[in-house]
Amino acid sequence: MLEAPILAAPQTKGHVSVARLAQHWYVACRSSELRGRPLARTLLGIPMALFRADDGQASAVLDRCPHRNVPLSLGRVVAPGRLECPYHGWQFDGAGRCTVVPGLCAGDGAVERRAPAFATRERDGFVWVYPTPDEKPASEPAPLPHVTAPGYTTVVREVAMDCTLHAAVENALDVPHTAFLHRGLFRGTGERNEITAIVRQIRHGVEAEYVGEPRPPGLAGRLLSPSGGIVKHWDRFVLPSIAQVEYRLGPENHLLVTSLCTPVSDFATRMFAVVSFRLRIPGVLVRPLLTPIAMRIFRQDAAVLKLQSETIRRFGGEQFMSTEIDVLGPSIWRLLKQAEAGAVPVSEQPEVVREVRLSV
Amino acid sequence: MLEAPILAAPQTKGHVSVARLAQHWYVACRSSELRGRPLARTLLGIPMALFRADDGQASAVLDRCPHRNVPLSLGRVVAPGRLECPYHGWQFDGAGRCTVVPGLCAGDGAVERRAPAFATRERDGFVWVYPTPDEKPASEPAPLPHVTAPGYTTVVREVAMDCTLHAAVENALDVPHTAFLHRGLFRGTGERNEITAIVRQIRHGVEAEYVGEPRPPGLAGRLLSPSGGIVKHWDRFVLPSIAQVEYRLGPENHLLVTSLCTPVSDFATRMFAVVSFRLRIPGVLVRPLLTPIAMRIFRQDAAVLKLQSETIRRFGGEQFMSTEIDVLGPSIWRLLKQAEAGAVPVSEQPEVVREVRLSV
Amino acid sequence: MLEAPILAAPQTKGHVSVARLAQHWYVACRSSELRGRPLARTLLGIPMALFRADDGQASAVLDRCPHRNVPLSLGRVVAPGRLECPYHGWQFDGAGRCTVVPGLCAGDGAVERRAPAFATRERDGFVWVYPTPDEKPASEPAPLPHVTAPGYTTVVREVAMDCTLHAAVENALDVPHTAFLHRGLFRGTGERNEITAIVRQIRHGVEAEYVGEPRPPGLAGRLLSPSGGIVKHWDRFVLPSIAQVEYRLGPENHLLVTSLCTPVSDFATRMFAVVSFRLRIPGVLVRPLLTPIAMRIFRQDAAVLKLQSETIRRFGGEQFMSTEIDVLGPSIWRLLKQAEAGAVPVSEQPEVVREVRLSV
Repeated sequence: MLEAPILAAPQTKGHVSVARLAQHWYVACRSSELRGRPLARTLLGIPMALFRADDGQASAVLDRCPHRNVPLSLGRVVAPGRLECPYHGWQFDGAGRCTVVPGLCAGDGAVERRAPAFATRERDGFVWVYPTPDEKPASEPAPLPHVTAPGYTTVVREVAMDCTLHAAVENALDVPHTAFLHRGLFRGTGERNEITAIVRQIRHGVEAEYVGEPRPPGLAGRLLSPSGGIVKHWDRFVLPSIAQVEYRLGPENHLLVTSLCTPVSDFATRMFAVVSFRLRIPGVLVRPLLTPIAMRIFRQDAAVLKLQSETIRRFGGEQFMSTEIDVLGPSIWRLLKQAEAGAVPVSEQPEVVREVRLSV
Repeated sequence: MLEAPILAAPQTKGHVSVARLAQHWYVACRSSELRGRPLARTLLGIPMALFRADDGQASAVLDRCPHRNVPLSLGRVVAPGRLECPYHGWQFDGAGRCTVVPGLCAGDGAVERRAPAFATRERDGFVWVYPTPDEKPASEPAPLPHVTAPGYTTVVREVAMDCTLHAAVENALDVPHTAFLHRGLFRGTGERNEITAIVRQIRHGVEAEYVGEPRPPGLAGRLLSPSGGIVKHWDRFVLPSIAQVEYRLGPENHLLVTSLCTPVSDFATRMFAVVSFRLRIPGVLVRPLLTPIAMRIFRQDAAVLKLQSETIRRFGGEQFMSTEIDVLGPSIWRLLKQAEAGAVPVSEQPEVVREVRLSV
Repeated sequence: MLEAPILAAPQTKGHVSVARLAQHWYVACRSSELRGRPLARTLLGIPMALFRADDGQASAVLDRCPHRNVPLSLGRVVAPGRLECPYHGWQFDGAGRCTVVPGLCAGDGAVERRAPAFATRERDGFVWVYPTPDEKPASEPAPLPHVTAPGYTTVVREVAMDCTLHAAVENALDVPHTAFLHRGLFRGTGERNEITAIVRQIRHGVEAEYVGEPRPPGLAGRLLSPSGGIVKHWDRFVLPSIAQVEYRLGPENHLLVTSLCTPVSDFATRMFAVVSFRLRIPGVLVRPLLTPIAMRIFRQDAAVLKLQSETIRRFGGEQFMSTEIDVLGPSIWRLLKQAEAGAVPVSEQPEVVREVRLSV
């Protein structure tokens, strides 16, 4: 009947920073979440049923029984590693093949009697899924070397974000909001300093190196380096969905926050934050102090990104206006669009593309 | 703005087993539900206000006052059997004619000042409504002979199903799921037996006769026939919406479950389950045992059908894959589509169309 | 996938009495509601952030930060009267100009770095907003002379109505429903009397004068005039959104209910009811008796109008059938449509257009 209410100009109806990159790997869940029961997960809007098949292998099939379209994730896993539909009891193996149709006398497991299956990889404590069904991926999931590197402590936290993948990634790598939104926790308590961001194109991504930044005066900074000093700091995006923040304070202290972002649907992103650090202070002491601060920061970000999503929906689209201190956001968006078009520029050697002055 | 998330192939966007047969009778409510107050009911998506007019006759009008479109069902019934709108007090008789406009001096009840009315029939304890307004139906509602037959006990239960009419009817007549979903209650506890289903085309419908079936080993079967034996069993669909399951165990025991399914809207079906039986055991003893079992079965079915509906909506359509032991479902769908096209095949004499082997 | 369920004829799919008049003034809030914190208000579907700028002036900007589209109304007002975004801390003045971008070293407040702003006026205790952004209005808000006139007492109440502007205005000026819906409170307790309504075209509106009406027998009438007598009564609509009911009982008693209706969105109207009276009884005595009765009447109206809106939505449109005692509703609708088309007929001198007999 009536269309949505007219809204005041200016606006750009219909544009939303959503890229749907289906031929890439995403984290579906942590290994520890996938046990004896099927798990429902959605990637790029595709409902999937995850389960461990007969050899214990993490498996993912479309979450819809091909018979009468009941979600398989609400059934059970029966020996030997078959996913059983809760309506008629059809059973499926890890490749999505139907192995049992209770009551059927004639016929065999015809090839059409299948649930589409998705390639999976399990490594570093994560189950990665490739959301194009019945395809052999040409690539492998990104390695996470610091998770297993000696001397490093790793903490993983999961955060549900009601926003696009682009908004989550831009936020994770955005410096200016930290002094304002996370004031006191991270930056924003002392004097502002002018620093330089050197932006480089890297392999499958983009990176900003921040030069001249004193140790952040907030609580997090004081924990990492009680004595202050100049920090080395990089913000890094790697296609399709990894946001990495790296800090080095002298030769001893090293902190990496790697946010593995999974596009659940256009406006829902699941973030697996992998915090790995090697500090002068023992990890066992840092961990109980750092985790609540990190979670508070994530929650503040999740709250503001939800407001952003609601406004975008309400206006029927987004209209962003950037300044030069939006150091990485516009580049990330360009890379996502290039990847969607199948044309990611190859930069084997990092290449400086510009420098920006900002005060933090 | 954005379309629904892309979903993985294979799927059939847009197809849903919905047939909208408006020139047929459906049960709107039980007689006992329609008393002094108007009752809101929806059939095929059409909101109706039911009430008893001056002669006590069950009446149904479109649930929208023709004046300012307030629902009439939220008004009152005033003497002598007029439905009164809660906003300005306009009154309507059983045929939808406006008899009173408070405050109006000039003019008379012009013919346009009417609420569209629907034909009704009240019989066997049910109020049937014909959901095409202001039309004289060419047919009559289906008779329910066992409700009044001597020696039979009848129990009626109402179940709200969040699914299409087709899904509700297929489920009511589907044998394979009973051994799995209703395991222990109905079938599925003992050894499986191979039996034969003889499928016949019948007048306005289709029927399957199950041959060689031992008494179901579940609780329901034991109640019906403590001594076991071979049962006679028919599953029957009659257009547009009746699903009937009939059991005979010897000359004495006879059980009929007649599900009168009413399409409330595309994904909502109201089922009036009429259970009539004549058993060696007195009906008064069977009733308190049978009713809770039947209700538990209905609830299990309603739960799984709701999941099916949610999945169909989520995927933007359904894609079913049948085997030969989906004995009646595909035939029911064909009959519904033929009826929608106005071309129901006439089979005055039952005609065998195929035989199927299945194990139960 | 599936369309909305088919509904029974007759109906007029798609027609709803919504007029979107963006080049007019509407009350956004009362002056007293706008203090130190920003206020979110929606007019004609346009989300606005209201705040007091540095000179205390009521200001309104589009409720979306131009940077990353977070609602500005969820930020704060910082000295000197700047609206601050909660994400990155961008600040805006009353004209929507961005005055601060935290962290930005280079560049200046470019003209594009603006939030669209709306003209405002503050008078008679209300903040009026003109919902076309960045435009200098050619007109001024309607004066409310009795709010400040000596001898008058004024009570203001705010009512949220889930209905169109047209439905709210028609209801406020509709006589026949009062004897039915508000029976006992207002009219409808005594004998009905035949009276005459003289309908006149007035400047930017339409008016009905009711002749021969005895004092309403309900509680409200008895309060206003304990001794009865003939009342003078006018119902008046002034474009785009003012509904005024005026009563005079002799030279002493004068009551005006001016409903300033604000179209929040197509089906939501915020009504600011300005009740001004000068009575023989002191205002300080009348006020505590009159206010609860008025609020009860408003709540009854709001409830029935919500049902009307729900039915209109459910049927995919409205279909109204009027009689001659719907004295002003159809004329109001014509005026709204003329105003939407930019062609309001000018009637400097009131002109009688018809007379209607009705019983109240």
